[in-house]
Amino acid sequence: MTGKITALELVEAELSESTKAYFAKCEEKLGLVPNVLLAYAFDEKKLRAFTDMYNDLMLGDSGLSKLEREMIAVAVSSINHCYYCLTAHGAAVRQLSGAALGEMMAMNFRATDLSDRQRAMLEFAVKLTEEPARIVEADRAALRQAGFSDRDIWDIASTAAFFNMSNRVAAAVDMRPNPEYHAMAR
Amino acid sequence: MTGKITALELVEAELSESTKAYFAKCEEKLGLVPNVLLAYAFDEKKLRAFTDMYNDLMLGDSGLSKLEREMIAVAVSSINHCYYCLTAHGAAVRQLSGAALGEMMAMNFRATDLSDRQRAMLEFAVKLTEEPARIVEADRAALRQAGFSDRDIWDIASTAAFFNMSNRVAAAVDMRPNPEYHAMAR
Amino acid sequence: MTGKITALELVEAELSESTKAYFAKCEEKLGLVPNVLLAYAFDEKKLRAFTDMYNDLMLGDSGLSKLEREMIAVAVSSINHCYYCLTAHGAAVRQLSGAALGEMMAMNFRATDLSDRQRAMLEFAVKLTEEPARIVEADRAALRQAGFSDRDIWDIASTAAFFNMSNRVAAAVDMRPNPEYHAMAR
Amino acid sequence: MTGKITALELVEAELSESTKAYFAKCEEKLGLVPNVLLAYAFDEKKLRAFTDMYNDLMLGDSGLSKLEREMIAVAVSSINHCYYCLTAHGAAVRQLSGAALGEMMAMNFRATDLSDRQRAMLEFAVKLTEEPARIVEADRAALRQAGFSDRDIWDIASTAAFFNMSNRVAAAVDMRPNPEYHAMAR
Amino acid sequence: MTGKITALELVEAELSESTKAYFAKCEEKLGLVPNVLLAYAFDEKKLRAFTDMYNDLMLGDSGLSKLEREMIAVAVSSINHCYYCLTAHGAAVRQLSGAALGEMMAMNFRATDLSDRQRAMLEFAVKLTEEPARIVEADRAALRQAGFSDRDIWDIASTAAFFNMSNRVAAAVDMRPNPEYHAMAR
Amino acid sequence: MTGKITALELVEAELSESTKAYFAKCEEKLGLVPNVLLAYAFDEKKLRAFTDMYNDLMLGDSGLSKLEREMIAVAVSSINHCYYCLTAHGAAVRQLSGAALGEMMAMNFRATDLSDRQRAMLEFAVKLTEEPARIVEADRAALRQAGFSDRDIWDIASTAAFFNMSNRVAAAVDMRPNPEYHAMAR
Repeated sequence: MTGKITALELVEAELSESTKAYFAKCEEKLGLVPNVLLAYAFDEKKLRAFTDMYNDLMLGDSGLSKLEREMIAVAVSSINHCYYCLTAHGAAVRQLSGAALGEMMAMNFRATDLSDRQRAMLEFAVKLTEEPARIVEADRAALRQAGFSDRDIWDIASTAAFFNMSNRVAAAVDMRPNPEYHAMAR
Repeated sequence: MTGKITALELVEAELSESTKAYFAKCEEKLGLVPNVLLAYAFDEKKLRAFTDMYNDLMLGDSGLSKLEREMIAVAVSSINHCYYCLTAHGAAVRQLSGAALGEMMAMNFRATDLSDRQRAMLEFAVKLTEEPARIVEADRAALRQAGFSDRDIWDIASTAAFFNMSNRVAAAVDMRPNPEYHAMAR
Repeated sequence: MTGKITALELVEAELSESTKAYFAKCEEKLGLVPNVLLAYAFDEKKLRAFTDMYNDLMLGDSGLSKLEREMIAVAVSSINHCYYCLTAHGAAVRQLSGAALGEMMAMNFRATDLSDRQRAMLEFAVKLTEEPARIVEADRAALRQAGFSDRDIWDIASTAAFFNMSNRVAAAVDMRPNPEYHAMAR
Repeated sequence: MTGKITALELVEAELSESTKAYFAKCEEKLGLVPNVLLAYAFDEKKLRAFTDMYNDLMLGDSGLSKLEREMIAVAVSSINHCYYCLTAHGAAVRQLSGAALGEMMAMNFRATDLSDRQRAMLEFAVKLTEEPARIVEADRAALRQAGFSDRDIWDIASTAAFFNMSNRVAAAVDMRPNPEYHAMAR
Repeated sequence: MTGKITALELVEAELSESTKAYFAKCEEKLGLVPNVLLAYAFDEKKLRAFTDMYNDLMLGDSGLSKLEREMIAVAVSSINHCYYCLTAHGAAVRQLSGAALGEMMAMNFRATDLSDRQRAMLEFAVKLTEEPARIVEADRAALRQAGFSDRDIWDIASTAAFFNMSNRVAAAVDMRPNPEYHAMAR
Repeated sequence: MTGKITALELVEAELSESTKAYFAKCEEKLGLVPNVLLAYAFDEKKLRAFTDMYNDLMLGDSGLSKLEREMIAVAVSSINHCYYCLTAHGAAVRQLSGAALGEMMAMNFRATDLSDRQRAMLEFAVKLTEEPARIVEADRAALRQAGFSDRDIWDIASTAAFFNMSNRVAAAVDMRPNPEYHAMAR
């Protein structure tokens, strides 16, 4: 862990055994410990709250595929110009679907050739990002029309909302992504 | 639990004993179970992830007072025009500081007579809400100048970011606040 | 008249008998003299021009009900985040239709359950507020489609336009509402 | 009165003698009856409320010169892209100060060579137009710094606010300016 | 050539014979050398690149009439509030179609009575100006629906895009139009 | 040349010998013919006007380094979310300065560690992109303060303006970058 991960000087706590084990598992499965986890690690309670929510949303049961959830992450982060999340989740989209889609999603999701389902999903996520107060029943109806269940709508909404949070934490503290992401799945 | 809480039809799960106990404690302490908890209760894992993060941020240790955290909640929700959060957290600000401040914060935080500390805190929270990609070191410096530690900056950022998430979940599913909030602390 | 009503120091004129009588009538009917009138009272010509226009628009003959006109006032003032007008006209909507509608209108009119007529009316008022240069014939056609006459369109337009003026005078001089409004019709 | 003045079909009332006399005076002094007056003439009460406020603001006593008030009118109308007001008040600025200033003000007031006083005045008027909720004490202080009294601030605010109303009435009803304005003071 | 044309002090080069001849031709045909050409003349390579592109777009073969191309120029420049281009190209629209259309286009193209073809063309040009990232296939389809060929779409796009460049060069260097434009075709 | 380069069906012209030679040179030096050139090749006059301007701006004499000009290209294209230009010019920044800077510039230039000179340059380019009508003398003064000459200001302005054009042509016709760019300089 060399180099600064955020612009803040926070008092580092001693990591618990379970956190050390969790980080070791990250290292083993991903080849790195994502910097966002190191950033939260100054307070294990905050770290656990973050990872519990993240893991449920991005890895848990859902009618949305993992790629779809990553696409939402990237489309939202593109609107918010979040360097951390575009780097980390752009890599994820490239891994799950190839380099071109990952690049396009990070730059302008409207440039991509998407299915009607995915386009509806991303248009909802982007409207929720840009002008949440304008969401009305017709927006939910468009998702149902595209084949999404009400539970799927919850998941689309929660994922888009989560990255609106996460983008802002990253922006506020100038969070730096692990440099390894840049080369992944190119 | 009569009346619709959200626009979605989600399959209600049987509540676990611990969730029942938690709701009973809410009822006892607040006089109601906040509808946001009932909305998440269709999936206890999601409910727990939400409440763990919420309780840490809003009730846990912090250099920010509870009133200050509620002020951030309301200022962010005012920008996002979130009916649910303005109602619930507007009531909280009224309870903690009187009716006038609660009203003003919900309508336009710039109309309030704030200390330099609180104004700096809210200007940061609002900029992070409106244009996260424009946050630069000077914005963090302004918070330090106003007396905030780096840990406080994390807490301001996390709280503002959390309500940017929560406002969007509420908007996406048309979440309805408990009507009791309207009359509280008037 | 204690406390500051605006941020400006204006030379107070002696009130004429007719203005004193008008204020006494306000006191009798409303229980207060609205601060906006006291703010304008430094110049009776300006006060009269303001009240003549206001009273005609809000109390005169119209195809719009008084509640509908107050709803326009609040929806416009919500977009403009006008503390004075949201407080005074929010109270009016609560008085005319109950607390919940008043709160919702002040926070986000799109969260309300409105008739098609009222939704069309408010969408026009809000578009006129946010992007007047984009109003085209289709917008007027939508109002006619919702049952409004051309005279009603004039009244919707004039009312929305008036509060775009009034919100800005209030913002420019930091006008403070009478504290009594906060408790009305809760 | 040939050609349509607005997009609305309003029942024309018989004009009173005093209104006829007023229009005759306009004809004599300006060479035309401004279409905005004809638009309001369907209801003399509304016409009178409008002209009373307009005449007080634009022609009454003020620390602002008539040219300065017209400059505010044009700068505000330029932001709002109001065809009616840019045409009528652009002509007024040209008459009072020459063709080039009138053109520039209508297109982009920031392109003009203004005194510090006039620039401060217009920056306030434009901020009040674009983002009224962000006006704070520092904005009023900047006007005082530029030499304006509190009464002048009232007049700047009222004039800018009035054209935010008037621009929106014109946009809402597609008000057409008298064609004679185009050739005036070129 | 008295008065400053831009806010920059650039080293003037000796004009080549061919440039002198070109300027003489402008003088002969237009009665003036447009200041934009004088502004670029400090570097003949830049001048030639600019005029080659300009002349091809505005005067070359196209399915768009010269008036239509000038209308795009003015509609785009109105959005961008470009004093130089509104003055020069506003004069061109007045010359090609009469004073009223030129004025209206410069102030708010939506106030004009346009054919469906021209409205579609300008709506595309304005959307491309304001939010290029949101252009999707449906926008091109609307142009084809209005009768435009794919080659016409290229020309609409290129012309709108060119003035988005030209408006920004003019804004960046405070380019001043030749005063003669103000009086043309009034 | 397989795959579609734009969404338009344009009649392909036979390429002249000089254009064939130019494309061969691109192939030799870059390993590809940039799709933007193929897109313009339906009309050699347009192609030449584009390449003359492009080559002068990006490769000609200037006080700005080639990297600086590419940084402007990418910062502007990031604001405009231009898939074509972010891909092609992102690759150029990576080649000239390493992968991390290229990524950051494409995502959010404010996340980069820049010299004061480069930050001033990019802030000007971005303001010119987002709100050209607000550029005033103080913005030029900031560039001079950062060490730029008036000629440099012209070049910053012209480069930023050029990509505001080019981004819009690409958006309007859905221009697709050569897939080879994705892998370059990773």
